[in-house]
Amino acid sequence: MKTLFHLDQNELPNQWYNVQADLDRPLDPPLHPGTREPMPPSDLHALFSETCIAQEISTDRTIDIPEPVLDVYRRWRPTPLQRALNLERLLETPAKIFFKYEGASPTGSHKTNTAVPQAYYSQVEGIKRLTTETGAGQWGSALAYACQTFGMDCTVFMVRISFEQKPYRKTMIRTFNGEIIPSPSDRTAAGRRFLAQDPNSPGSLGMAISEAIELAMVSENTKYSLGSLLNHVLLHQTIIGLEAQRQMELAGETPDVIVGCVGGGSNFAGIALPFYRADRLSGRKTQFVAVEPHACPTLTEGSIKYDFGDTAQTTPLLRMHSLGHDFVPPPIHAGGLRYHGMAPIVSRLVEDGIIDPIAYDQVDVFASAIQFARAQGIIPAPETAHAVHAAMEIAKDCAQTGEAKTILIGFSGHGHFDMSAYSSFLDGALRRNASP
Amino acid sequence: MKTLFHLDQNELPNQWYNVQADLDRPLDPPLHPGTREPMPPSDLHALFSETCIAQEISTDRTIDIPEPVLDVYRRWRPTPLQRALNLERLLETPAKIFFKYEGASPTGSHKTNTAVPQAYYSQVEGIKRLTTETGAGQWGSALAYACQTFGMDCTVFMVRISFEQKPYRKTMIRTFNGEIIPSPSDRTAAGRRFLAQDPNSPGSLGMAISEAIELAMVSENTKYSLGSLLNHVLLHQTIIGLEAQRQMELAGETPDVIVGCVGGGSNFAGIALPFYRADRLSGRKTQFVAVEPHACPTLTEGSIKYDFGDTAQTTPLLRMHSLGHDFVPPPIHAGGLRYHGMAPIVSRLVEDGIIDPIAYDQVDVFASAIQFARAQGIIPAPETAHAVHAAMEIAKDCAQTGEAKTILIGFSGHGHFDMSAYSSFLDGALRRNASP
Repeated sequence: MKTLFHLDQNELPNQWYNVQADLDRPLDPPLHPGTREPMPPSDLHALFSETCIAQEISTDRTIDIPEPVLDVYRRWRPTPLQRALNLERLLETPAKIFFKYEGASPTGSHKTNTAVPQAYYSQVEGIKRLTTETGAGQWGSALAYACQTFGMDCTVFMVRISFEQKPYRKTMIRTFNGEIIPSPSDRTAAGRRFLAQDPNSPGSLGMAISEAIELAMVSENTKYSLGSLLNHVLLHQTIIGLEAQRQMELAGETPDVIVGCVGGGSNFAGIALPFYRADRLSGRKTQFVAVEPHACPTLTEGSIKYDFGDTAQTTPLLRMHSLGHDFVPPPIHAGGLRYHGMAPIVSRLVEDGIIDPIAYDQVDVFASAIQFARAQGIIPAPETAHAVHAAMEIAKDCAQTGEAKTILIGFSGHGHFDMSAYSSFLDGALRRNASP
Repeated sequence: MKTLFHLDQNELPNQWYNVQADLDRPLDPPLHPGTREPMPPSDLHALFSETCIAQEISTDRTIDIPEPVLDVYRRWRPTPLQRALNLERLLETPAKIFFKYEGASPTGSHKTNTAVPQAYYSQVEGIKRLTTETGAGQWGSALAYACQTFGMDCTVFMVRISFEQKPYRKTMIRTFNGEIIPSPSDRTAAGRRFLAQDPNSPGSLGMAISEAIELAMVSENTKYSLGSLLNHVLLHQTIIGLEAQRQMELAGETPDVIVGCVGGGSNFAGIALPFYRADRLSGRKTQFVAVEPHACPTLTEGSIKYDFGDTAQTTPLLRMHSLGHDFVPPPIHAGGLRYHGMAPIVSRLVEDGIIDPIAYDQVDVFASAIQFARAQGIIPAPETAHAVHAAMEIAKDCAQTGEAKTILIGFSGHGHFDMSAYSSFLDGALRRNASP
């Protein structure tokens, strides 16, 4: 039975899908962090490329992918769609489980899908360097890869504790020519301030964001880049779902349920939004399941409100689900799911009942990830493992009810750089986190 | 321009190619370690499955791949063939560089190609467990994956120094349900002997082989499994070249040069031998380049002779290129290329002038690997990096001469579990090894 569904390179979609054309009400505008007044997009010009800012507020339904971006995408895209037939057999479920494998990218996750166009647009506008922050390292390695592809420099502020605990990610960033600085650092005024408060600070994503933004603001030909949350990031990620639609057709199936993990929301939106569009056209009702960790339950226990993107309250305020910008999640292994906020687009679709959020504990998540790895030969990233676990729970329900649901997993990345998390689980050392 | 060449799952070859049908003289028989007399295959029954022993001496040109093995292969095979167009542009070469990407396998290297049939044949014969040794960990993880796929146990003796230095590989083996024991250990008489001599022994592949063989001999329903060197292992690896032939046809090209790294010789033979067969039929003369490290120059500086496979002189003697069974190579990062001997089939074809061996220093090899990674977005394993470097040298020669050679690289695996080697190189801490 056929289980691998490849598209040819010439079948790569050449437009992204922009859900802002299909929201029942427009998104609420960002607010200025000082005045708390709606903020004109032009206020973002110091930080982001013109094209990304234009995409941030565009309501065009489709946006052309530039040919140089397609050229780079084609180095690994279209990514494969696979059917997890062995997992189905293991679970003795009548459900069919498919997964769209973004681990095939150069840095092993979906993050390159937006890193490449962000770097391209910046280069076209004469920018010589991008700065950013990274926690687990997936985003930092993706942006480093994208920048060197277009002959640009990349400076990554990596949360110091991750910098020390994840030497392999750090080396990958350097291999792709990225400059990597443990944060807090003495390279910025903000960093020096943090260090003055605590010379041994382990750092945080909030601190690293402050440093990356500051360095972009004070440096020549330098802008800042964000790897999730914003509308243009989610736009770029729709390449995942657009490919998956064609591949599900090849497989002769239509998904009843689409499952993805959510940190900032971009990989989930990437696979889900094109199917949401199809639902609007056909009247079909796909179930969209956004999976988050118990330890950082932004959608399941947070509330929708205007909130800052960073701890230091320097970013514009976005209307989104949030646990509060000062929320500090426990140190779970899914570093990409530890963010306090959520993409405004995903928040809106949860608010409107289109997306169903659910939260799981990491111990259950890793147990499922091990089963998946043994059945399918692919080790999921800890973030991705949340989606895998949720899909397996649905498939097990099907085994009880006899329903033959078709489940599609947004498989955001492999776990090759996160094996210490698996080691903790196998040692029985992984802690169960009570929800906060 | 098309750079990715996929075969559909139903185009997977269903037979391996056995080069023993096409050697001008039959291979020399193994000798008994005690008597030094030619050894009947039946003497191997205590160690290997009946089917593998039959394949070891078969002269049938093709051998059917069992359907259950094809079923497992199809989880990731056919692997992609890619054209390294960005690398060509970087080198400003008229050469065309293709690579056959075995990093797509569950454990990230070609090793699963033989682990799966070895586990399958053993299971059919009622074996419940396989034992083996592993150095860098690629083979141990592949056999663990294959064993759990067929419901068998797997015990891996991992050289203690690697066990301590490569925690991620260790965790991968455990994730795939393998039992992993640092060697030397107190689980075997041999291990206890080694420990009595040196309680802090870092171990060696020779010691680990002795332990794995002993455990197989003294345990019920247990056999031993070897990941390279032997004829049946090379046979299983020909799936690589057989796929690559069809994919090169899709690309509309015929390779002038085929390049692969050689440790025991199996991945190189896997890509090269089917093209050697085609040469015999067509009268064409492909250049076959076997690349090894300066630090372990088995083919370039060793001699052909009967020698033991292990340090302790317990294995049958094979007629092969060898640096001597007591050769201890310096601790280079390409752990898979540190073996003193070479597959008898590869040795024969070098002896007959069919294969051209060449040796490079690891410092030059890593410099090329970084260039490749930046151009193509794929980080080669340190072993694979040797093949990449050799191919780049040939492509640079073409830039000088204007020759438009078509080069095919056997890309044996990715380097996600070897990033510490890249870190050493980027830190400038990698040593240049004088050849011994």
